[in-house]
Amino acid sequence: MRIAILAHEQFPDGAKTALGVLRYADDEVVAVLDRDRSGHRVTDFVSDVQDAPIVAGMGDLEDDVDALLIGIAPIGGGFEESWREDVRTALERGCDVVSGLHYFLSEDEEFVELAAENGCELRDVRRPPDDLSVSEGVAADVDAEVILTVGTDCSVGKMTATMKLARDARAAGYDAEVIPTGQTGIMIEGWGIPVDRVVSDFTAGAVEEMILECGDDHDYLFVEGQGSIVHPAYSGVTCGILHGAMPDRLVLCHDAGRQAIGGYESFSLPSIPTYVDLYERLAEPVRDAPVVAGALNTAGLAEPAAREAVDEFAASLDAPATDVIRFGTDEVLETLLSSNPNR
Amino acid sequence: MRIAILAHEQFPDGAKTALGVLRYADDEVVAVLDRDRSGHRVTDFVSDVQDAPIVAGMGDLEDDVDALLIGIAPIGGGFEESWREDVRTALERGCDVVSGLHYFLSEDEEFVELAAENGCELRDVRRPPDDLSVSEGVAADVDAEVILTVGTDCSVGKMTATMKLARDARAAGYDAEVIPTGQTGIMIEGWGIPVDRVVSDFTAGAVEEMILECGDDHDYLFVEGQGSIVHPAYSGVTCGILHGAMPDRLVLCHDAGRQAIGGYESFSLPSIPTYVDLYERLAEPVRDAPVVAGALNTAGLAEPAAREAVDEFAASLDAPATDVIRFGTDEVLETLLSSNPNR
Repeated sequence: MRIAILAHEQFPDGAKTALGVLRYADDEVVAVLDRDRSGHRVTDFVSDVQDAPIVAGMGDLEDDVDALLIGIAPIGGGFEESWREDVRTALERGCDVVSGLHYFLSEDEEFVELAAENGCELRDVRRPPDDLSVSEGVAADVDAEVILTVGTDCSVGKMTATMKLARDARAAGYDAEVIPTGQTGIMIEGWGIPVDRVVSDFTAGAVEEMILECGDDHDYLFVEGQGSIVHPAYSGVTCGILHGAMPDRLVLCHDAGRQAIGGYESFSLPSIPTYVDLYERLAEPVRDAPVVAGALNTAGLAEPAAREAVDEFAASLDAPATDVIRFGTDEVLETLLSSNPNR
Repeated sequence: MRIAILAHEQFPDGAKTALGVLRYADDEVVAVLDRDRSGHRVTDFVSDVQDAPIVAGMGDLEDDVDALLIGIAPIGGGFEESWREDVRTALERGCDVVSGLHYFLSEDEEFVELAAENGCELRDVRRPPDDLSVSEGVAADVDAEVILTVGTDCSVGKMTATMKLARDARAAGYDAEVIPTGQTGIMIEGWGIPVDRVVSDFTAGAVEEMILECGDDHDYLFVEGQGSIVHPAYSGVTCGILHGAMPDRLVLCHDAGRQAIGGYESFSLPSIPTYVDLYERLAEPVRDAPVVAGALNTAGLAEPAAREAVDEFAASLDAPATDVIRFGTDEVLETLLSSNPNR
């Protein structure tokens, strides 16, 4: 697919979805829309991702595209009216529009009408299927080894670690699949369930359903984790994924220098060993799931400090760790893909 | 209100909601509907609850009633077609019908029509409000001391302990309110949010919203817990309530003799000290919430064994414990209502 990604006023730092898609999706990104940065290119700001021109709006895009992706999500997940013109233009040109917003484009009267007129599709990836149910506690029965990324907070790199580990495992000849649980993962992989939007009773069940769907067809499943087990608002989602996935091994993800829960600054992060202890103890009655590796986001640090931070993180985990973007995944994958005494 | 309670083929052991309402609601129960036990009375089977005749169906009920409550919930929460005649008769007689099923009566065409014709109401208490949002992590700011019941499994007595403790606290002159989080609690109290039905991202937020709504108007809030932190299917709901409520103190509820998760028999229950440790450690980064008391359901035990089981439970908790129905709540309340070093 040839796609354009909307990221107005937020590229690259506030555009987590846009970056994820640029980095990992198989789609060809024809342009990024950011009215504050038009005239630049993606690689003026980020390396290690596919390059594309940045334009001010869909009207400036001469190439044909198959789909426009909404690549940013304001707090609350609402639709910004300043994006309407771009979505309208996309639909008028026969482009599908893919969105991970809480606001469903497929319930917007104007968009529904335009999509029908122009024979294109509105895909709200954050709308969960309506036939979900409770977990049966059987995810561990699949043939695949299940590896779950867990985090110290939101936005510490769980999705990135999941995608990079699975891709590097594949490149090394292993049969690995991703279980996408959030909107960016779903956009990248083209399937998945937005677990934070399912009925709370079905949180574990939604993850279990995805694992059962493909767990016998692969050797390794990398499950995209969400939130943090000590997050004041989102811990329920994290806990449901932990028990629903019944993982064999955990990868703890952290953002170097993060001291407090993002957006909830009165809540300090516990120590890394406390996280390891909490995740393992909480998993254990359902599934013995040791933290065997770590992924540290060091994007905010210069080179010698970044390496030191990774070493320190590995020491506090008593396990191999890396910044998956900066320092590769060899050592961590060696541990993750080694034979498992659990199996 | 004068009410009838539908509990076909399930009274009393399979009729958790019916029993809860008989025991704690202020409503006058005119009859219980159970076609297998018609001709008997409630107190032929249970003591310590209000008495009422058991009849075979709404057609056998001569007295006027204001509402028919669905007092049982099959696995899956579906509507049994064998109940349709009773609901129909109730609506034809102008009775409201109150249901905690996953199946919403207010989406059943025949019932909607009958309710409109007869000027009565279909109340689906398991339908959450649609304006919920994420937790802000501020439940602890209310004036009230917040006490949360947590459990070793589903159906171990969290709702019963919550109701009994709050009522006994009130009887002793304390200003205590209940925060209902499940269908039975909501039916008894006449308000609340069915937390297991909200969008998973809003689990903590739903509880926080209820606490903020009334937490400055009372001295004690007793929050009805749900599920268990190690339940393979429902732990996400439990974890969201734990962090959303930001409780000052926890009461651990357990069913004497329960060895494995109900319906998930391959998952053994961890030891009681393991539960205490898990709940306290998991709460701590958000709120210091010690387990200060226990509630043991000893309904399956004869008298000397029941007392021994409570003593043993108290010893394993290192805190006072009771069977709230059988042995009263004096000692446990003394601990719960004592001055709190946290505040």
